[in-house]
Amino acid sequence: MRVGIIGGGSIGLLFGAYLGQSHEVTVFTRREEQAQKIRDMGISLFFQEAEEKVIETDAAIGESGISDQDILIIAVKQYDLSHLMSMLRSIPKEIPLCFIQNGMGHLEFLNTLPQEEILVAAVEHGAKRLDDRTVSHNGAGQTNVSVYKGNYDMEERFPKSSDPRFPVCFHDDYRTTLINKLMANALINPLTVIFQVKNGRLVDNPYYYELLKLMFEEIYSIFPLGNKEELFNSIVGICKNTKQNTSSMLKDIQEGRKTEIDAILGYILKIAEKKGAKLKAVQMAYVMVKGIEQERR
Amino acid sequence: MRVGIIGGGSIGLLFGAYLGQSHEVTVFTRREEQAQKIRDMGISLFFQEAEEKVIETDAAIGESGISDQDILIIAVKQYDLSHLMSMLRSIPKEIPLCFIQNGMGHLEFLNTLPQEEILVAAVEHGAKRLDDRTVSHNGAGQTNVSVYKGNYDMEERFPKSSDPRFPVCFHDDYRTTLINKLMANALINPLTVIFQVKNGRLVDNPYYYELLKLMFEEIYSIFPLGNKEELFNSIVGICKNTKQNTSSMLKDIQEGRKTEIDAILGYILKIAEKKGAKLKAVQMAYVMVKGIEQERR
Repeated sequence: MRVGIIGGGSIGLLFGAYLGQSHEVTVFTRREEQAQKIRDMGISLFFQEAEEKVIETDAAIGESGISDQDILIIAVKQYDLSHLMSMLRSIPKEIPLCFIQNGMGHLEFLNTLPQEEILVAAVEHGAKRLDDRTVSHNGAGQTNVSVYKGNYDMEERFPKSSDPRFPVCFHDDYRTTLINKLMANALINPLTVIFQVKNGRLVDNPYYYELLKLMFEEIYSIFPLGNKEELFNSIVGICKNTKQNTSSMLKDIQEGRKTEIDAILGYILKIAEKKGAKLKAVQMAYVMVKGIEQERR
Repeated sequence: MRVGIIGGGSIGLLFGAYLGQSHEVTVFTRREEQAQKIRDMGISLFFQEAEEKVIETDAAIGESGISDQDILIIAVKQYDLSHLMSMLRSIPKEIPLCFIQNGMGHLEFLNTLPQEEILVAAVEHGAKRLDDRTVSHNGAGQTNVSVYKGNYDMEERFPKSSDPRFPVCFHDDYRTTLINKLMANALINPLTVIFQVKNGRLVDNPYYYELLKLMFEEIYSIFPLGNKEELFNSIVGICKNTKQNTSSMLKDIQEGRKTEIDAILGYILKIAEKKGAKLKAVQMAYVMVKGIEQERR
């Protein structure tokens, strides 16, 4: 199967490395320099800090060859999607697209696309790009995929990895898939940024735990999907399972990158406002992360 | 005038140094080692990091000589007051006491004391204790004194310094005096702790400024004393005037000491609860500082 991955960041390289073992993968990057390196040397995959293997994949920049793929996985940050929109609109409408952005703010974008089959996915893996062609797979997790639009038969057609460390799970309701991910991101990411701590401290420090709960209550009041207690416990579980991990948003701050705070808490605040609800704790956390982001510039 | 100062921390030494230039000062410390150093070598006063002068004062531990003073200035942290209560109760009721704690939680303590004249003061100075007998006077400010109980004639009787850098101002309404101080402490201290920044960043970073405003609105709703806009501007003014200063609470955190968060935000939350009001932003900030305090232990 010919799999095109748009974006050569940590998640793009991770998908490239795992899917490249049993599919014809092409990674579409922004810089020719990165594409050249991937073409010449393949993607180098580390698993928990020890080098695992090198996977040969193709790479390209721009749009050349993008229409030859059987599926396109779009692995750029949500705030970079807007730059891709006109290119995505020009892709033949028969090619399924799979979006793996955090948050839900991009859903309105997706409605403007001509493609007949659109998937959304939520990635639980912890990954860190070490250089242009090297990715470290730190936190094991899974990829949750749902159909957003069309009649795509996921179980049959979605490209899978032969490696058990890269499981893909299929879900019927895309909202639950995205909201579960949104919830975890909305709680763990901002709090780890505000306190500059690894994920585990949010459940080990009783006051941080109290804040986790406070924000959860507010967000659940807006997205009351699934069993409340189960959902909260699953977030506590993520903190415990990834206790040594630096959250993606804290990594963004540490490395001077823009965070996805607008796609995550900004989105939640927008929905809350539409519903006429005031989420004061979420608002505080949002403004705090914006302030910290500002300090690092 | 014989002035007894209870407490050999930064504020106790600062009062000792300035009042000791024109009064017979005795500093009452907890440790004999510190008392010995002050007796032997006097208090060494730095002004904005350059040594200014050495002021000879007496010093003692425990209660010996405490009843010979014309006034006692109690310069311990609010959370240490409880250890002093039985000793304070045994002091002759004719000796006026002046309390210079942050917050307002100690007012209920004061009602249980037998002394006929009790004063409260709010100190705007920035001071840092460099060692047992050395204090650095960093941020210039003033001391605001009010009568809490009795008929003490402040203008006439309160000990003054001959040094213009240590002005004392008298106010009729002790609540306004303390609340102005409480307000500044409640806003500047927690936010500088959460973001680990100097005071000036709270007005220079637009998001931090937004949080300052958000918390101000909540606190003012509980203590609507004085003109709202003037009060907020005075707090912004403090941030600007002390922009290079590390707030006392951030210093406490950096040096692993307990903070006065309970005396400040804890007190405000208690009053709000009594009034049936929910201060979500204040509560968030309170829990955050408690969490940060917990991390540093």
